[in-house]
Amino acid sequence: MSLLVTGTIGIDTIETPGGRAENVMGGSAAHFAFAAALVHPVRLVGVVGGDFPAEFQRHFHGRPIDTAGLEVRAASKTFSWHGRYHENMNHRDSLRTDLNVIAEAPPRIPDAFRDSQFVFLANTHPAIQRGFVEQLTGPSLVVCDTMDLWITSAREDLLAMLKQVHGIVLNDGEARMLSCHDDIFLAARTVLEMGPAFVVVKKGEFGSMLMMRDELVVLPAFPTQAVRDPTGAGDSFAGGMMACLAAENRLDMPTLKRALAYGACVASITIEDFSLDAIRRADAAEVQRRIERYREMLRI
Amino acid sequence: MSLLVTGTIGIDTIETPGGRAENVMGGSAAHFAFAAALVHPVRLVGVVGGDFPAEFQRHFHGRPIDTAGLEVRAASKTFSWHGRYHENMNHRDSLRTDLNVIAEAPPRIPDAFRDSQFVFLANTHPAIQRGFVEQLTGPSLVVCDTMDLWITSAREDLLAMLKQVHGIVLNDGEARMLSCHDDIFLAARTVLEMGPAFVVVKKGEFGSMLMMRDELVVLPAFPTQAVRDPTGAGDSFAGGMMACLAAENRLDMPTLKRALAYGACVASITIEDFSLDAIRRADAAEVQRRIERYREMLRI
Repeated sequence: MSLLVTGTIGIDTIETPGGRAENVMGGSAAHFAFAAALVHPVRLVGVVGGDFPAEFQRHFHGRPIDTAGLEVRAASKTFSWHGRYHENMNHRDSLRTDLNVIAEAPPRIPDAFRDSQFVFLANTHPAIQRGFVEQLTGPSLVVCDTMDLWITSAREDLLAMLKQVHGIVLNDGEARMLSCHDDIFLAARTVLEMGPAFVVVKKGEFGSMLMMRDELVVLPAFPTQAVRDPTGAGDSFAGGMMACLAAENRLDMPTLKRALAYGACVASITIEDFSLDAIRRADAAEVQRRIERYREMLRI
Repeated sequence: MSLLVTGTIGIDTIETPGGRAENVMGGSAAHFAFAAALVHPVRLVGVVGGDFPAEFQRHFHGRPIDTAGLEVRAASKTFSWHGRYHENMNHRDSLRTDLNVIAEAPPRIPDAFRDSQFVFLANTHPAIQRGFVEQLTGPSLVVCDTMDLWITSAREDLLAMLKQVHGIVLNDGEARMLSCHDDIFLAARTVLEMGPAFVVVKKGEFGSMLMMRDELVVLPAFPTQAVRDPTGAGDSFAGGMMACLAAENRLDMPTLKRALAYGACVASITIEDFSLDAIRRADAAEVQRRIERYREMLRI
């Protein structure tokens, strides 16, 4: 089934304890799209400025990423972010965030994309996420991400948006902040009561938790010690997860678990190099190899 | 094979957001022994005072817990602890810790126990843990626990002790503190370089990580939302894990993974009620039911 992602496409500068990458491609929708495309074709909706490098445009070519929804505004500048990670790469400082074109009117979903069945609203202002949902003709599954900035600065918009989605993917800190509960189960249950049918809480190198009304599953991360840059881990996870769901076109528990496994395996590739370098080098066979190793690890 | 645990047996007062239990049985070796005994017979070495209630003594009866190593010093008082948990029950304050008999000479391992093959040194001063190791005639596997107190106050003793054990089980905060590394993989690897052949790092409701020289496995917790009192979760985990290893008498990776699964399932029982109440009500069949549900959860 058709899979759509909306979100940011940007130019990142990233510092980690192990190195630095300057002016590389980043953004939530970019990370999602490259990860998902290893599993299932994906439609991309986003906006960049006239300064978006032609080289970055070419990175999309030859992959099942439909860029008909990638708008280029010649007079604007591309979203840009500079982050520095601590030794524990779950922690980072944003040294600079230039919204640029992201602060203008959001891109529109092309007519040809409005029938998309599986939709991921990567991180942006929740009012914009709602605007995207309203452009869809009847999606089967809409899942969103969010972040601390919107939880504190746009809470009402976020709560309204959560009534329009089927699922949310967020990390444990965000779940605690959004729910105002420190206990992670209570936090996830409180988010569930805000609207979505399922909540996925990610816990970095330890894994993820899927909570539904009557179901609770915890699955580990795919272990990798070769972490060079965790930027985009969450969006890659969502990309692998949503691509699996779109490919299988089912939402039963076995499929959801498999989707979490794809998320874990694809995200483990992303973080093994800066920016999109590792995920661009990877292929579907590498994802399958990791899925098999993951299955083997979980065979008790 | 024979399984031995050394550690504290105490009288706890516990406050959680959901309730309070006053003067109940606790202590690391008690939690380990009741958990392990659901899977495999266990030998207990510990010391209590004359105030140790006869009722607590009776709790051991009718279970495969050999209390020949439980020394009662009539003139002394039993170790006692009063803790209060936050809403996020990974966090707690120790309101009162009365070492009492624990501050005296440690108990000796009875002659009949010295040939024990699988040994768990539950949390106590590392010099005392070393003393226990020296009383053993030739164990197959010695695993220890530790805590922040010894990491900061008895570091040299702890490092010496780590050269005498095969494995260590600790939580992620302890691993970070002991290794002086914030990154959890780097933390575990650094602990590994201190001596043990394997390190198990626990991360509460998210699960555990097993690191060896050339192996890395992450397994989730057994999900339970009915947490009433997390006291003893780590010792129960170790109890389930060591009991499985002793029962199977193997140390290959499939057995180690199964041991982590037993740890996860047994710990999930412990935390569902105060003190030892839930683990005392449970039976081997309940452990097996959870193992099956855990296996099913991990079937991708």
